[in-house]
Amino acid sequence: MTEKSIFRYKVDPRRVDFTERASISSMCDIILEAAGEDAYKRGFGIDVLAERNLGWVLSRMCVELDYMPAEYSEFTIHTWIRDYNRLASTRNFTLTDDEGRMFGRAVSQWCMLDFSTRMPADVNLLARMHEGVMVDAPSPCERPRRIAAVGSEPTAKHRVVYSDIDFNRHMNTMRYIDMVCDLLPIDELEQLNAVRVDMNFMRESRYGDVLSLCVDRRDDACAFEYRSGEGEALCRISLELR
Amino acid sequence: MTEKSIFRYKVDPRRVDFTERASISSMCDIILEAAGEDAYKRGFGIDVLAERNLGWVLSRMCVELDYMPAEYSEFTIHTWIRDYNRLASTRNFTLTDDEGRMFGRAVSQWCMLDFSTRMPADVNLLARMHEGVMVDAPSPCERPRRIAAVGSEPTAKHRVVYSDIDFNRHMNTMRYIDMVCDLLPIDELEQLNAVRVDMNFMRESRYGDVLSLCVDRRDDACAFEYRSGEGEALCRISLELR
Repeated sequence: MTEKSIFRYKVDPRRVDFTERASISSMCDIILEAAGEDAYKRGFGIDVLAERNLGWVLSRMCVELDYMPAEYSEFTIHTWIRDYNRLASTRNFTLTDDEGRMFGRAVSQWCMLDFSTRMPADVNLLARMHEGVMVDAPSPCERPRRIAAVGSEPTAKHRVVYSDIDFNRHMNTMRYIDMVCDLLPIDELEQLNAVRVDMNFMRESRYGDVLSLCVDRRDDACAFEYRSGEGEALCRISLELR
Repeated sequence: MTEKSIFRYKVDPRRVDFTERASISSMCDIILEAAGEDAYKRGFGIDVLAERNLGWVLSRMCVELDYMPAEYSEFTIHTWIRDYNRLASTRNFTLTDDEGRMFGRAVSQWCMLDFSTRMPADVNLLARMHEGVMVDAPSPCERPRRIAAVGSEPTAKHRVVYSDIDFNRHMNTMRYIDMVCDLLPIDELEQLNAVRVDMNFMRESRYGDVLSLCVDRRDDACAFEYRSGEGEALCRISLELR
């Protein structure tokens, strides 16, 4: 057993949208940055894994924010792993403002992939990676939901370009979220108070791929599905704006 | 007379492209951030100007980089104003790595606009703003060039969306540059060593506007022009990749 890791962040100008508050994609990006930093610090970051041709792949994530932090505000992220199973490791996060109020919670689920076989990595290896790093504290919110298929016809098409891709030449998570927000009426983003985002990642999209984006308004959430040119679901996002 | 202002920056993960080096747009963004910080520190930032319904508007900028800094590397920006005229203030920048080598230079030209009349601000006000802040050091490179009209037919169209806009609901400079890079063959961006970017800003583009992007390959540079739906030039960018 160990302690939760603590990171400090500041909402600098490039993190904010036109409302001068952090955008949803920026907040998800900061949370993923904390995950990467912590894994690196504890010796199982992508740098170490890459030497053995392994890597962490994000399979699901949820983020709950009670408000969007303002430009220049600072906050603290606590992150910890409580459990893992044969296939996935679950990392938890809380976000706390400078008055000590918890205003955000997140849960991410990661698979370890062997890039030479494109198969999940050995379970014993997963166990060894988690030795001594577990923290006995439950997830701070409901875990990432499974998002049902979105049945609608595509609303938008997008070819994956240079400014969308990460070092693997895959479309990065921020751009998935930004493009979903781009489809919302701008008033909804302006009046946004709280949000819950759920994401399910099924397959990567690569530089040059042409994606279709489908939208389905459900009860109090909006569900989106990115599909490949062949019609396969690549990523689903559900947004509950409050 | 005063001293140059000094700011430190780090190439954090969200600044890099697939080559794991800072992207051209990130470097321009960092340089503009230094400009904003320095103006704020010296008492003529957009916060103070906004109270009088005034604002700085970027009219031209050039950036020269001898190499693209790697992820996690740190560097120092020196910035100063040497001169201004009736219409524009010229701000200079140098970028220096941790071995003390200057690897980047930039010059930006700013107009002060009265938002109530959409006309340039009073010259005496401009003079007062510059009192005591001038530094007697020349621009570190050739000043921003005037980019000639791009004659070609549009190569791409783009509707300005949520993730493109800044707090004024105008398309932000980073997105102008990113979209230009998105049109380049990705090999050119991968093999990029040094770069000179020149930018001429003529009119803002607003949320919802549909832009045309025209491209013209010239000698050793590539010139781009964004046009409004009415065919007016909004912004021209010239990229020399070396």
